[in-house]
Amino acid sequence: MDDTYQQSLALHKKHRGKIEVTNKVPLTTRAELSLAYTPGVAEISREIGRNASLAYEYTIKGNTVAVVSDGSAILGLGNLGAHAAIPVMEGKAAIFREFAGIDAFPICVNTQDVEEIIALVKNIAPVFGAVNLEDISAPRCFEIEARLRAELPIPVMHDDQHGTAVVVLAGLINALKLRGSNKEEVRVVFSGAGAAGTAITKILLAYGFKHIIVCDSVGAVFEGRPGLNDEKQALAKITNIERKSGALAEVLQGADIFIGVSKGGLLTSEMVHTMADKPIIFALANPIPEIMPDIAIVAGAFVVATGRSDFPNQINNSLAYPGIFRGALDNRISQFTEEMFIRAAESLAGYVKSPMPDQVLPSMFDKGVVEAVKNTIHD
Amino acid sequence: MDDTYQQSLALHKKHRGKIEVTNKVPLTTRAELSLAYTPGVAEISREIGRNASLAYEYTIKGNTVAVVSDGSAILGLGNLGAHAAIPVMEGKAAIFREFAGIDAFPICVNTQDVEEIIALVKNIAPVFGAVNLEDISAPRCFEIEARLRAELPIPVMHDDQHGTAVVVLAGLINALKLRGSNKEEVRVVFSGAGAAGTAITKILLAYGFKHIIVCDSVGAVFEGRPGLNDEKQALAKITNIERKSGALAEVLQGADIFIGVSKGGLLTSEMVHTMADKPIIFALANPIPEIMPDIAIVAGAFVVATGRSDFPNQINNSLAYPGIFRGALDNRISQFTEEMFIRAAESLAGYVKSPMPDQVLPSMFDKGVVEAVKNTIHD
Repeated sequence: MDDTYQQSLALHKKHRGKIEVTNKVPLTTRAELSLAYTPGVAEISREIGRNASLAYEYTIKGNTVAVVSDGSAILGLGNLGAHAAIPVMEGKAAIFREFAGIDAFPICVNTQDVEEIIALVKNIAPVFGAVNLEDISAPRCFEIEARLRAELPIPVMHDDQHGTAVVVLAGLINALKLRGSNKEEVRVVFSGAGAAGTAITKILLAYGFKHIIVCDSVGAVFEGRPGLNDEKQALAKITNIERKSGALAEVLQGADIFIGVSKGGLLTSEMVHTMADKPIIFALANPIPEIMPDIAIVAGAFVVATGRSDFPNQINNSLAYPGIFRGALDNRISQFTEEMFIRAAESLAGYVKSPMPDQVLPSMFDKGVVEAVKNTIHD
Repeated sequence: MDDTYQQSLALHKKHRGKIEVTNKVPLTTRAELSLAYTPGVAEISREIGRNASLAYEYTIKGNTVAVVSDGSAILGLGNLGAHAAIPVMEGKAAIFREFAGIDAFPICVNTQDVEEIIALVKNIAPVFGAVNLEDISAPRCFEIEARLRAELPIPVMHDDQHGTAVVVLAGLINALKLRGSNKEEVRVVFSGAGAAGTAITKILLAYGFKHIIVCDSVGAVFEGRPGLNDEKQALAKITNIERKSGALAEVLQGADIFIGVSKGGLLTSEMVHTMADKPIIFALANPIPEIMPDIAIVAGAFVVATGRSDFPNQINNSLAYPGIFRGALDNRISQFTEEMFIRAAESLAGYVKSPMPDQVLPSMFDKGVVEAVKNTIHD
């Protein structure tokens, strides 16, 4: 990893970042300038002044996404602040360009006050056709996303939640097909009740999964457990119908599926042995998964997925968000819905013509993926 | 003009805006992605997390300018709001790219509340190396600029004020040289006490002009005139030492220089005739100047400048701001000062090797202009 870090430092230093703002129109003569700027541009402003929606026709708005972070939960690194978020949001913008032809720009905000962030994103929205929230810590991310979705006329998505959820659901659809299991019958246990865990839980329930228990660092979340915050109380209401209590190791016994969005190394071989036959293990902690894939396989796992590119079945948001935002812009939706995310997951799963236990998802470098996802994002 | 408008509409519609966000690094393989994004980017975030100023080394910050407007005073069109500001701010960003190699991005804010705008610009500042305020109405622009200059660690400039002021001073320096006049002795009368008028007045005073009277739509601004707002009271304190009152036509009698930043057509031949011999006329209202150049010349004007590209001596901010911001970024100044603006004006004036009455300024297409201005912007 040290080598990757050194190369990455050298790359960033050489280019001073990864994106740039370039021109789509020529500006080398007075005549060209008089069309792109004054006096010609006055007519564009007058037209948009009369009808704001013409910004979609005459400006970058229709192809532009704000990548917004407050740096409170950067990758797996924690709360490093707005400046440290810049290279990650630039990277995200670069992926938007490369994979989906989208103009994205990093908005790294120097406040972690929920109300200030909401007001700010609403105020800068005119230039953007959609908003990608990123690396904002739970539970703040839930309120910021919900409020912006309710109060903005353009689609808003917190990628750490829904991008991850779409890719996990896609992987599970193929894993269940291979295992011959039924979504209504399998028992799913989560380790991690943060942004990703909550969003994956919700999409699985919406898709038809019935038996889900979410564990946080204390153990199973259940209705009535003392000290739950609002978000976990809401989670308790919709999961764990038997109100099981106990540590992860206890509630995991007999489960068909483990989904880890928590901490590296906390799933042991012994715990895998106590699960149902041919368990499905999605160990998504980064950079070190809850269990290493080879160990999980030896312990009997049927399908293993991680966030890593050096093992099979990489759960990578990049499979989802370029297509999701491409579709949102092209089809000019006003807001994302759970139905769109489910369709996107089904399309991603269906894109793998012959799924195998070590290939439940397509590669993000497959040029057809963005197209397949984009077509599912419509009203 | 209708033809220009139609061509401009067609250009904007065809390209859906004028700028785009593109990539400086390749992203076509997993290895490249692992340097530009995870896992490699984690190291960049950690480094910047420890020392925020490293954002200048590893991200776009060091070459990136926010072009911020609330759409309250778009060109000469008035208060058309944030969406109508987008095409103008995009045009500005495109000029930054073409003339100075700067990455600029339009921030068009959906609020006209001074405190909200100040808070917002402060909060989005991490990604930017400098802030260009644009098309914000007076007197709000004065407080927004002053507060941001005081409260942000990066340089902030309201271009409608200082960009214009720099170019006007440059033009006047050469016009006075040709006329053989002394800055301390000439009498200057302004029509217009808004953002541009105020900023030009201040730079002329700082440069050494002594006799300035500013008129608003009521007439001469003088200390003690009833009903002056705070900004005009401040202006009254530093100008019009003889406390002259009266309409523009009265105070203009015998003046050497007229500077119009007001409304088209309000300067008549008769008024020019009452001025001193060989008067200098800067009629900067757009698109129709206070007096048309040919009429002013017939009335005896020695040097005439306007904002228009179809007459000699165009006073165009584009002569100043690309170089000013290029210098601000390259020399990493923390704030702009009046001294820098004066140096920039002197350099612009000196760039014209043989000034003539119909050529007191260089062309913005002259490649050396940015370089000449940029070298003056340092601590």
